Amino acid sequence: MPRYAFRIEYDGAPFAGWQRQKDQPSVQGAVEAALARLERDVPSIAAAGRTDAGVHATGQVAHADLSQNWDPFRLSEALNHHLKPAPVAITACAEVADDWHARFTARGRRYLYRVTSRRAPLVHDRGKAWWVRQTLDPVAMQAGADRLLGQHDFTTFRSVQCQADSPVKTLDRLEVESRPVPGGTEYLFHVAARSFLHNQVRSFVGTLERVGRGAWSPDDVTRALEARDRAACGPVAPPEGLYLTHVTYPQDPFAD
Amino acid sequence: MPRYAFRIEYDGAPFAGWQRQKDQPSVQGAVEAALARLERDVPSIAAAGRTDAGVHATGQVAHADLSQNWDPFRLSEALNHHLKPAPVAITACAEVADDWHARFTARGRRYLYRVTSRRAPLVHDRGKAWWVRQTLDPVAMQAGADRLLGQHDFTTFRSVQCQADSPVKTLDRLEVESRPVPGGTEYLFHVAARSFLHNQVRSFVGTLERVGRGAWSPDDVTRALEARDRAACGPVAPPEGLYLTHVTYPQDPFAD
Repeated sequence: MPRYAFRIEYDGAPFAGWQRQKDQPSVQGAVEAALARLERDVPSIAAAGRTDAGVHATGQVAHADLSQNWDPFRLSEALNHHLKPAPVAITACAEVADDWHARFTARGRRYLYRVTSRRAPLVHDRGKAWWVRQTLDPVAMQAGADRLLGQHDFTTFRSVQCQADSPVKTLDRLEVESRPVPGGTEYLFHVAARSFLHNQVRSFVGTLERVGRGAWSPDDVTRALEARDRAACGPVAPPEGLYLTHVTYPQDPFAD
Repeated sequence: MPRYAFRIEYDGAPFAGWQRQKDQPSVQGAVEAALARLERDVPSIAAAGRTDAGVHATGQVAHADLSQNWDPFRLSEALNHHLKPAPVAITACAEVADDWHARFTARGRRYLYRVTSRRAPLVHDRGKAWWVRQTLDPVAMQAGADRLLGQHDFTTFRSVQCQADSPVKTLDRLEVESRPVPGGTEYLFHVAARSFLHNQVRSFVGTLERVGRGAWSPDDVTRALEARDRAACGPVAPPEGLYLTHVTYPQDPFAD
């Protein structure tokens, strides 16, 4: 059975998350339903990252074993046809080796978290970014972010439902980019690691937003990290600002 | 009666355009309804550009005469409160002179037109950009765009409903920027002029998309321009890709 990898983009708003659930719409369920229009025995698909309810993706990656041989371009076209009108699209497709696995072969994940700070409610980015009314200090947020780089026990920034074996992870990048928007500023948090704990990015951003509005100092971030205690974390930022943007593999399966 | 200027952002999708209409929702109607919650005699507002049905704005400017003196910050906060849940927001507000006019004092308008070229349907930019399945040649589109710069009789690129006295306008900027998006490329058309004819930007983009996919040459753009004939125009690009981004005044009323 040939194995295919898919790069998937979705708007998380109407979904209870990536993972298939019995009575709620999921992204996995939407993609599997589209596959079921093409294959008799619906193959189950595995994804690089199980995003939570409301979280978006521009670069989720999943794989499935199909019974027929497909031209990857025709396969993605057929899936996009059957995915309509769900806000889910296959933006790349490739045949991969039988032992290639979207999750276990992955060597890194990148996330983007968007925060818009302004008084006026969001219009074009409604549901696409976290709206914060306070002005934020990007220099302070970057100073706080720098305290989190490298290998740490991230128990403080891990949901109590997290099923990872270990709370020790290595954070490779946490960079705060600013850009002006009408009436305010948008902050883009660029985050990269080999893998993440459950709610880790949203816990980082919720904590750094506190630093941005002056309620916490960068030293408070270090203290929270060193506490290794979920209760020491700032609030978890809402899902609508988070995007899974890229999954890295030893060889990019979608390279032309 | 003090006069106030407003910078307004809106999603054009639910509206029949800027201008107030009897039986259809309009942006002007939404802003005037919010003003009516603050002032007994609802003031009529005048805008710099009357955008068509479905066209967006990030930098529309309008003015209104109010009976009371308002702190501009409080006025914008109150309007944003009453505008909810419409996708319309006041992103800046300032008191201006009695003879300042959002439309007649303006010295320039800037528009952005977004085209996404890829096979996969749009997800995050659904309704926010024109989705084109063909690949486009940005160098050819820029070569075609350059033929339109400067002062010309733009009859070819003017809607038959256009009420402007003269078809002669001066196009100051028409620049095509490219950026990669998952599965394709986004093209940003940056357009600037003192003023525009009705449907002028969408007529430009519809024509240049023909050039981008090789159906027309840049010389065909020159021929279309010189024909001074509406029938010589390419198709009019759809409204969802168009944004009124900025209105220029001799002095920026919203400067801090």
